[in-house]
Amino acid sequence: MENGSARWGFRGNEELNVASGTTIRGSLTNLMENLDKDDPRPTVPLGHGDPSAFPLFRAATAAEDAIVDAVRSAKYNGYAPTVGILPARRAIADYLSRDLPYALSPDDVYLTTGCKQAIEIVLTVLDRPGANILFPRPYYPFYEAYAASKCLEVRHFDLNPEKGWEVDLQSVEVLADENTVAIVILNPGNPCGSVYTHQHLKKIAETARKLRILVVADEVYHHITFGTKPFVPMGVFGSIVPVITLGSISKRYILPGWRLGWLVTTDPNGILCKLGVVECITGCLNMASDPPTFIQGAVPHILEKTGEDFFLKVIDILRKAACICYDRIEVIPCITCPNKPEGSMFVMAKLSVSLLEDINDDMEFCLKLAKEESFIILPGLAVGMKNWLRITFAIDPSDLEDGLARIKAFCKRHAKKQ
Amino acid sequence: MENGSARWGFRGNEELNVASGTTIRGSLTNLMENLDKDDPRPTVPLGHGDPSAFPLFRAATAAEDAIVDAVRSAKYNGYAPTVGILPARRAIADYLSRDLPYALSPDDVYLTTGCKQAIEIVLTVLDRPGANILFPRPYYPFYEAYAASKCLEVRHFDLNPEKGWEVDLQSVEVLADENTVAIVILNPGNPCGSVYTHQHLKKIAETARKLRILVVADEVYHHITFGTKPFVPMGVFGSIVPVITLGSISKRYILPGWRLGWLVTTDPNGILCKLGVVECITGCLNMASDPPTFIQGAVPHILEKTGEDFFLKVIDILRKAACICYDRIEVIPCITCPNKPEGSMFVMAKLSVSLLEDINDDMEFCLKLAKEESFIILPGLAVGMKNWLRITFAIDPSDLEDGLARIKAFCKRHAKKQ
Repeated sequence: MENGSARWGFRGNEELNVASGTTIRGSLTNLMENLDKDDPRPTVPLGHGDPSAFPLFRAATAAEDAIVDAVRSAKYNGYAPTVGILPARRAIADYLSRDLPYALSPDDVYLTTGCKQAIEIVLTVLDRPGANILFPRPYYPFYEAYAASKCLEVRHFDLNPEKGWEVDLQSVEVLADENTVAIVILNPGNPCGSVYTHQHLKKIAETARKLRILVVADEVYHHITFGTKPFVPMGVFGSIVPVITLGSISKRYILPGWRLGWLVTTDPNGILCKLGVVECITGCLNMASDPPTFIQGAVPHILEKTGEDFFLKVIDILRKAACICYDRIEVIPCITCPNKPEGSMFVMAKLSVSLLEDINDDMEFCLKLAKEESFIILPGLAVGMKNWLRITFAIDPSDLEDGLARIKAFCKRHAKKQ
Repeated sequence: MENGSARWGFRGNEELNVASGTTIRGSLTNLMENLDKDDPRPTVPLGHGDPSAFPLFRAATAAEDAIVDAVRSAKYNGYAPTVGILPARRAIADYLSRDLPYALSPDDVYLTTGCKQAIEIVLTVLDRPGANILFPRPYYPFYEAYAASKCLEVRHFDLNPEKGWEVDLQSVEVLADENTVAIVILNPGNPCGSVYTHQHLKKIAETARKLRILVVADEVYHHITFGTKPFVPMGVFGSIVPVITLGSISKRYILPGWRLGWLVTTDPNGILCKLGVVECITGCLNMASDPPTFIQGAVPHILEKTGEDFFLKVIDILRKAACICYDRIEVIPCITCPNKPEGSMFVMAKLSVSLLEDINDDMEFCLKLAKEESFIILPGLAVGMKNWLRITFAIDPSDLEDGLARIKAFCKRHAKKQ
């Protein structure tokens, strides 16, 4: 018998490859394949936000100590409850309550494998035939890719670059109908580097209340702010509208590879419980994989013992890096940043292809940049904005200077001759 | 405005609660709620296989050292490639190749968050409208629960208790049709405690080849054997039929809470690659959460440095515990084990409700046992066998003796008066 492929009864699920190709990881894999292996210069990785590889951003010793103690105790080798172990839930409730006008209970907190699994859980919980959900544009495309694997119809509202990437609330009201279940807000914003004011967040909450929809607040970049506006959690407005807050230690603690996140019901009126959402979150977690138990065991120490000096140092470097990024881009004619980034680790920049000789769109720009300059940035198309670029500045500032000099040379070389 | 629940546009996804209730975790949660809080005796937890809480089963120091070294190196704080980091993939390929007639490559290995995520990945990859998949009965119900969230139709073939819980291959041939994509085999067997011979596994492979379907080999209990038959991986027959092998360090290394598993293509003819299955696994992992990077970083050391003495000690305790379990049950009239367990951490026992006074089925038996004796075992219904019981013996043998005395007293108390 031959092994002819035509006759086997199974094959790969092709729809999955399409969905997966739309994630940032999928887009970056394509770009990486375009790098010139003979280029002796180090690759400048401005495609995704992971500063952990740079010694300057090394995680706090307190976090390492917490893991070592948890592993050595041998108390956390077994399975954890599906919602997470109580001390970790309590520590996260206390940590988040510092910024809220009410106290969260450990029962409000569910541990997840990074913020990514928190996104999966909330979309799975809200999923039902005919339902639609409102996502911002530009977006963090994992939401779109995951929703595509569910029954959820995705509707995009625009963020306004002229107004600090605020939500266009009028377009939200136009988009929503009786089948709309939720609006997703990312603050501090990925990919825009925006930070919303107390006033704007309150308006979002009031709009959601008017529309009778849930607010999903993705705050994975909580407290990563370095402009004039402080971080305000959406949960502050939990008595206006029920809020499900998503977060993790990935960004603020510079520990993305530790995969420790949370989903939190910031809902002092208990509406989510009444509507069966809380029961459903638990049901969903029963079916899901938990974060490793010893990492859960380390959470209280990580949150309590990481010093304020660590956060200040990180914010200081990011502020400096954001300035370098903005200033260097400002002098490149074909790239424009409408806003100086004030939070997260990203900025969106507009590409004027009309000023370029032999480049037709953002994707071609990024592919040629990878090939000619060993420089990786994400085409805006990957986040829903054709002919924009998403650039991270969360790398060592000296590498950033070097990298941005390459993009300047690249743009000059490809500029349309006047 | 009031917060009346009727008017909000979202609610929990109720189908999810139904699916989640069918998992072992869901069933055990129900039983735990039936425990008598005033019973001063410690609960005997024979409902699920997690011996890690018992000092006798403490994990190897080499595994703890590996984590400590990986965390202290600060080399593994960032995101990992979606398929897993190369040294971990290589170490797992080498580890599994020891038992195979051919060598696996690191490219055959994909790291997952426990074996559970490996199950999710393989079912997602095989999912397509109209497809069906063959699962054994009794079963490990996470497969059923997860398939229910997909388009996959589940068909059950029986395992034969009279023949050491071997697969009834005739019923497999009757069940399969042109839309069948795969057959799932658990060896060593959960919940049966069975270990399949080389000859039986070869017959399964030949049947799958005849039917042109994939074999999914769940070997999470690999090398947990203590009878006369050695563990033979299904991958040995990879040149007869493509095999996807699922596994983890959870059971053999007594580290279930570390959530480190793998999905491996054991397919020396490269059929899975030709059929797009490999591409699809990668696509699926692009969308999924990875195991924490520093745990991946620890994998080579865990696999290479855990001594043979550790495995021998564990097998020795399990052999002793399996004997105690089997022998003590043999003298209880209303419970019968058709086979002495030879592997995994479980045994299936038949309940004769006709010999009991006031108990009508396995569920009632387990609920009353929890209430009256603080003793948790899983009703057979949870694994597809009404009026059977699934009992784990993977606890400290002295606790097991104590526990089984309770079940004996319970059965005597409820026995039908002759």
